Amino acid sequence: MCQRLCIVGVGLIGGSLALALRRAGGVGEIVGCGRNAEQLALAQSLGVIDRYDTDPARAAAGADMVVLAVPVLAMEAVLGELAAGLGADTVLTDVGSTKGNVAAAAARSLGKRLGRFVPGHPIAGTERSGVQHAFPELYAGRRVILTPLEQTDPAATARVRALWEAAGAQVSEMGVAEHDAVLAATSHLPHLLAYALVDTLARMDERQAIFRYAAGGFRDFTRIASSDPQMWHDICLANREALLEVLGQFQGDLQRLEAALRAGDGEVLMEVFGRAKRARDAFVDSNGAAAPPQAAAPAAQDERE
Amino acid sequence: MCQRLCIVGVGLIGGSLALALRRAGGVGEIVGCGRNAEQLALAQSLGVIDRYDTDPARAAAGADMVVLAVPVLAMEAVLGELAAGLGADTVLTDVGSTKGNVAAAAARSLGKRLGRFVPGHPIAGTERSGVQHAFPELYAGRRVILTPLEQTDPAATARVRALWEAAGAQVSEMGVAEHDAVLAATSHLPHLLAYALVDTLARMDERQAIFRYAAGGFRDFTRIASSDPQMWHDICLANREALLEVLGQFQGDLQRLEAALRAGDGEVLMEVFGRAKRARDAFVDSNGAAAPPQAAAPAAQDERE
Repeated sequence: MCQRLCIVGVGLIGGSLALALRRAGGVGEIVGCGRNAEQLALAQSLGVIDRYDTDPARAAAGADMVVLAVPVLAMEAVLGELAAGLGADTVLTDVGSTKGNVAAAAARSLGKRLGRFVPGHPIAGTERSGVQHAFPELYAGRRVILTPLEQTDPAATARVRALWEAAGAQVSEMGVAEHDAVLAATSHLPHLLAYALVDTLARMDERQAIFRYAAGGFRDFTRIASSDPQMWHDICLANREALLEVLGQFQGDLQRLEAALRAGDGEVLMEVFGRAKRARDAFVDSNGAAAPPQAAAPAAQDERE
Repeated sequence: MCQRLCIVGVGLIGGSLALALRRAGGVGEIVGCGRNAEQLALAQSLGVIDRYDTDPARAAAGADMVVLAVPVLAMEAVLGELAAGLGADTVLTDVGSTKGNVAAAAARSLGKRLGRFVPGHPIAGTERSGVQHAFPELYAGRRVILTPLEQTDPAATARVRALWEAAGAQVSEMGVAEHDAVLAATSHLPHLLAYALVDTLARMDERQAIFRYAAGGFRDFTRIASSDPQMWHDICLANREALLEVLGQFQGDLQRLEAALRAGDGEVLMEVFGRAKRARDAFVDSNGAAAPPQAAAPAAQDERE
């Protein structure tokens, strides 16, 4: 599959991909790259990578596949440092949670090598970061979205698809803009709302009682507010346009719900709540079986808190 | 503890209380009441209640303790039907998720018996309803809030406290208004937001892709949108004032976050996200150990979706 795979950014995401591909076989040498030599030495000692270099161009030299697994706002700088080390046939992909900004950065940095770039996004992760938490099953049964550009060579896309399938993932393709709109709705907006809600409550006078009497429903609803603020700062800024779009729609809908509540209009509440319940139940029905056990829905607690 | 306990509304909440008290001992006869004779017969056949009557006044006759476990918007009607059957010393309590409206209904319905009424709220439940899902451990280690009124006899409060403690719960007391403000923040607003978000997404053109690519983070964030719409319609209307108050604060905070995002002001994002993460992590640390296993936080998945 790869003679030499270079992974730039050997953390949970990059490291788990390396482990999954090693287990699957078909990958020759795995070269790690990153800014932190200590973390790279750890990755080597854990058997995640075979060797490493902190210089992207040197690390990528001779690789037939390079995976960028760095934060989305770091992509452009790394692409710039990397470009000189890429061979004419080297396939390049990334794992960023946003695709529009990465595609734009690639267009600026890669020149005629843009055709070998396949933007990608594995929809997987845990609350832990760092190569010490990497594990080969992270992508088993999870979805990976590829967003090939107009210029992307279909053969490059096919190679990246094969890579992720070897890691156990289900690969789909969509356009960059559709990806960013879908992820803004389903992931970036929920994170923004969870952070905003917890922050609102944490600044209220009753905050001690609020957190003391919060229970399971609140715990689940706000779990994503325990995510890494820096990562989500980056994602929100990188996908700002799409996020503002869906945020605006949500705010309008929430204002209509507020007006109904103020007017005591129970019909509107029933209509919205009922439609939401049906959509959410259908989502669980259609995704429940495919999700790996650690992502399975817990028994709902405290519904009537 | 009780010679004769009458439970009006023998579903998950009322039924589980009956089972917990039977197991704890100290309760003589348990009389069920409700509109649906079939459900009451089922409760009897399951050993949850000893006998039943569909008429509240008859069911409550001779009881030294009556627990109202009906939907919050049904409380006033049931109180009216019940009043004639209450003895001079009968202690009355309820399990409603909102307390201001129940207290007001009690003041209108109970007259001189108001001193024997102790409003209460067990913060427990599951996504299932109906007596067939009742189980005696539902309240083990969970919090119950009592909101005694100015008129409430302290001896009545002590008896209700003992009842819940026998069921395994941790009992606290607070004022009606504080209860409603705290629960609006920690439970009612999150439900409203989860319903609103899922409904917004379900009405978008990309809804199919949105739900297809949603993962664990979205699943947890929206789990409460699978709750019973009728119950949450009732709760939102019953606690409208407090809910509108905290909803207004949240909307203001969200608008400030939107403005920062639009301006590309990363500092504001980091400030809000960081403060929220610290508050949420502290909440989990302080509540994690006390929560029963089925409400424990699942390993966070898909943080970077």
